[in-house]
Amino acid sequence: MTTNPIQLFDTESSTFTYILAAPGDTDAVIIDPVARHWERDLRHLERLGLKLRLVLETHAHADHVTSAGKLCEMTGALAAVPGGCGIAPAELQLQDGEVLRFGPGEEIRVLHTPGHTAGSMSYAWRRNVFTGDALLIDGCGRTDFQGGSAQALYDSVTGKLFTLPDDTRVWPGHDYQGQSVSTIGWEKRHNARLAGRSRADFARLMDQLDLPRPKLIDVAVPANRNLGLPHGG
Amino acid sequence: MTTNPIQLFDTESSTFTYILAAPGDTDAVIIDPVARHWERDLRHLERLGLKLRLVLETHAHADHVTSAGKLCEMTGALAAVPGGCGIAPAELQLQDGEVLRFGPGEEIRVLHTPGHTAGSMSYAWRRNVFTGDALLIDGCGRTDFQGGSAQALYDSVTGKLFTLPDDTRVWPGHDYQGQSVSTIGWEKRHNARLAGRSRADFARLMDQLDLPRPKLIDVAVPANRNLGLPHGG
Ligand SMILES: [Fe+2]
Ligand SMILES: [Fe+2]
Repeated sequence: MTTNPIQLFDTESSTFTYILAAPGDTDAVIIDPVARHWERDLRHLERLGLKLRLVLETHAHADHVTSAGKLCEMTGALAAVPGGCGIAPAELQLQDGEVLRFGPGEEIRVLHTPGHTAGSMSYAWRRNVFTGDALLIDGCGRTDFQGGSAQALYDSVTGKLFTLPDDTRVWPGHDYQGQSVSTIGWEKRHNARLAGRSRADFARLMDQLDLPRPKLIDVAVPANRNLGLPHGG
Repeated sequence: MTTNPIQLFDTESSTFTYILAAPGDTDAVIIDPVARHWERDLRHLERLGLKLRLVLETHAHADHVTSAGKLCEMTGALAAVPGGCGIAPAELQLQDGEVLRFGPGEEIRVLHTPGHTAGSMSYAWRRNVFTGDALLIDGCGRTDFQGGSAQALYDSVTGKLFTLPDDTRVWPGHDYQGQSVSTIGWEKRHNARLAGRSRADFARLMDQLDLPRPKLIDVAVPANRNLGLPHGG
């Protein structure tokens, strides 16, 4: 059954943060929280009467710094991160196919979806999938750093995400055009980069993008590998 | 039971638009759509496999123009608006206490909550309330034009909205700080303008705000009274 998460936005990096909770229950999970919004996000949990259990990262972001470590410190929640992203201080190092549990009987299925970065994960919950920067609405993440690979992204999206039920809601890690949500069925048929394109075509397209190096990458990736916490002396 | 709507944002006017649908059903309602986003909003309905039945306005906005007329033309949905807002072309002129129905058995309760404007309405659905510019997160709408009245707003919020169950989620018409949602319980206890303040205190506070006249008011209000459609010759 469809249960929408709560979607929060960071205007600086156009990043979405999600709060997940089962209807009628108080256990909550947060996905991809942003450093400068940790107080906003805690206030939302408080206002909604929710108790934070897990903080999930989809990957070690290059464009913003996470507040995962801070939120865990403040609430006692556990950090759960992709095992292949080098985020050493997180308690839970996730592997493909694992299932995370919270609340009265909620399950989050962990999907390894490499390509944007080598370690990137997506998370499936109740006919929703949180795709980080693998699959975006009518687009996809870049594949030119942090072990990125257009071939791997193609396989992750077409071979893994597109096998989810068509009505699965797609909640991306970013959107730059005021969009909020899509579905697997729509992206399979219409995604401007992926629909109807071969693996080789897609790789050529991604190769030609020639994107500038992200301004924050040298700061953000090391910070995110430490859950956004200051590095010890 | 809590069912979150889908929340869309207009960065120009910081306006929220909401899409409501019962889990598992295809009938949808949209609240406060924004003119320049009509294609984005239709695309969201299409991607989610939803059929638009009703377009609701909380009031005749002074800060942005609605796409209600356009969306109704494109989809056959009906426009439902507060009876006291002078929005003549809308099929459904709502009165306080009315119940709107959609989907398999969904009910939207119409609450007349004057004060921001004389006609302003809020809409209650499944432990959610869409408050327009009456109650904002940790704030409230201004009361100095379109028949606004601080006393009326105080009575609407404390006498009507604050009598909803504490865990009712509050989805405002605007937010200027990246916030998404609150609850009646939290606002009752903590709202910076309303919590613990008397009617007279609140009226004094609102009187002293001395806000600039909204830049768009002379264009937006007449346009919104025509559902955002061009005026006939
Ligand atoms: Fe990324
Ligand atoms: Fe307004």
